[in-house]
Amino acid sequence: MTTKVRVLSGMQPSGRLHLGNWKGALENWVRLQTHYDSLFMVADWHALTSGYHQTSAIPELTRAMVLDWLAAGIDPEQSVVFVQSAVPQHAELALLLGMITPLGWLERVPSYKDKLRELAQRDIHTYGFLGYPVLMTADIVLYRAGYVPVGQDQVPHVELTREIVRRFNGLYGDVLVEPEALLTEAKVLPGLDGRKMSKSYDNTIALSATAEEVTQKVRTMLTDPARVRKSDPGNPDVCPVYHLHQVFSSSATVAEVDRECRAAGIGCVDCKRKLAEAINTQLEPIRERRQAWESHPETVDDLLVAGAVRAQQIAEATMHDVRQSMHLTVGRE
Amino acid sequence: MTTKVRVLSGMQPSGRLHLGNWKGALENWVRLQTHYDSLFMVADWHALTSGYHQTSAIPELTRAMVLDWLAAGIDPEQSVVFVQSAVPQHAELALLLGMITPLGWLERVPSYKDKLRELAQRDIHTYGFLGYPVLMTADIVLYRAGYVPVGQDQVPHVELTREIVRRFNGLYGDVLVEPEALLTEAKVLPGLDGRKMSKSYDNTIALSATAEEVTQKVRTMLTDPARVRKSDPGNPDVCPVYHLHQVFSSSATVAEVDRECRAAGIGCVDCKRKLAEAINTQLEPIRERRQAWESHPETVDDLLVAGAVRAQQIAEATMHDVRQSMHLTVGRE
Repeated sequence: MTTKVRVLSGMQPSGRLHLGNWKGALENWVRLQTHYDSLFMVADWHALTSGYHQTSAIPELTRAMVLDWLAAGIDPEQSVVFVQSAVPQHAELALLLGMITPLGWLERVPSYKDKLRELAQRDIHTYGFLGYPVLMTADIVLYRAGYVPVGQDQVPHVELTREIVRRFNGLYGDVLVEPEALLTEAKVLPGLDGRKMSKSYDNTIALSATAEEVTQKVRTMLTDPARVRKSDPGNPDVCPVYHLHQVFSSSATVAEVDRECRAAGIGCVDCKRKLAEAINTQLEPIRERRQAWESHPETVDDLLVAGAVRAQQIAEATMHDVRQSMHLTVGRE
Repeated sequence: MTTKVRVLSGMQPSGRLHLGNWKGALENWVRLQTHYDSLFMVADWHALTSGYHQTSAIPELTRAMVLDWLAAGIDPEQSVVFVQSAVPQHAELALLLGMITPLGWLERVPSYKDKLRELAQRDIHTYGFLGYPVLMTADIVLYRAGYVPVGQDQVPHVELTREIVRRFNGLYGDVLVEPEALLTEAKVLPGLDGRKMSKSYDNTIALSATAEEVTQKVRTMLTDPARVRKSDPGNPDVCPVYHLHQVFSSSATVAEVDRECRAAGIGCVDCKRKLAEAINTQLEPIRERRQAWESHPETVDDLLVAGAVRAQQIAEATMHDVRQSMHLTVGRE
């Protein structure tokens, strides 16, 4: 028996991740797994809440994303890596928690109305979309997670989870664990065009990019628009290349390009070459791990199955207590 | 493989049933099982939609009700008798169907607002209560039931089920079966006080009543209030005793008490004795079956477990197709 606090994290199956996903979340997951008893979940059911119209790509998106997780250093020996839909206890607990969750609590979640507006063309005024926080609550409390790593924008969801847990325990006894938000600084990376790196802006560098692809992508990056010629002094503060240096380069290199850019001592081409090198240096161990996993593609599916079995064991122990406390026991094996 | 059409029926766990439940529903179920491949479900999860506050009696209510089913002639060799919560596929399918069910469809179900008003003191403005028709849809389509026996008031629910099925099949292919409502004449029995026989009026005769209890209960029944003395002619049309004669007595007896009551040829005491005899005659085979089951109380729990295993087999075949059609397949064994 481990005595470590348990932590659950999840991502919707979104295919190949980019450097923004890596620095914004995945790198943090890799750190978490050494300190906590960690579960990493592909939230495919959650993906249906806003994407039920188009599901045919889910298997491919799942496999590509999990390969990125593994390449980034998620260790399936140390952590439980699984797909949500392979653990039916999530649905059972969500159903039960839904019975005690007032509609008003769900309608008041700040992100609910925002997202309805944002995805207005997608017709997501569905029962499932409204119930997103209930399913998320089930995901967390099924594993008696002590922490949920979230960004500031997700804190209201964790608050709602805690409210639902308190209501459940008030009705049926002290069965579920109230999780705490583990606030993680959400590092936002600029993309090739200077806007936030995001798949929807098509301005990303994939975590799985080759060294050549990285070099090429960086070469196309926008820089300080006021610096027209190499002899013009530049302003790193408005340059996305410089911002990526701050994330990927050594502090010596960051100081150097900052100084030399302002002094027109380094041109953008050289500055970008240095950045590509820095990114590639950081990606090297990821590429090695990827190669090892890619040479046995069936192992990704296999480890997800093994992860689901481990997840089910933990989940079933919780559900046993939940069913007992709610007196839903007759007619079960 | 059976080629019979499949039929699913369910009742919330409500403990000992009364003669109104028997004549209104259960007797029909017993008829159904000879014509259809029948499943009879204790809808314990449904009971939570309006009764999540108080669940401790569910096991006892379940066992008492199932014993009544068996006594009435439900044959667990012929039909599948099970408890909803023992078949987790109901929750999984409900979750998936909820993803594609517009909120507006649920809010427009006529019984929704009625019941919110009716149970205003119970605080059932919950997510689970709103989703009642989604769970009911899952119950039915999980078994690819061709028919659902319902009263007229339940027809809108079956209509909604059909709409959800059409939407699912439109999105993911022809996977689910659209069920049809099997309209059953809902026989309404008068209770001891002349109002509809109902637990909430405390005017019932239990299906499990002894012969003495039946005689005693019938003796307390209201009759034509205008008939004060035996010599006064009575009016059977307004007499609940006469109405029960119409359900339980032979047509010869019905004709006789009708005639003799109007002619003051029979007194209420005798008329009630005849009714008690008629009820007891009909209850005799039920009492015998009950005795057989009661002598092995553990068998009720056992047969529910066996029923859940059979139900799961059917349900899992449907879920396999559902998961395939929605592309939720990676990471499952």
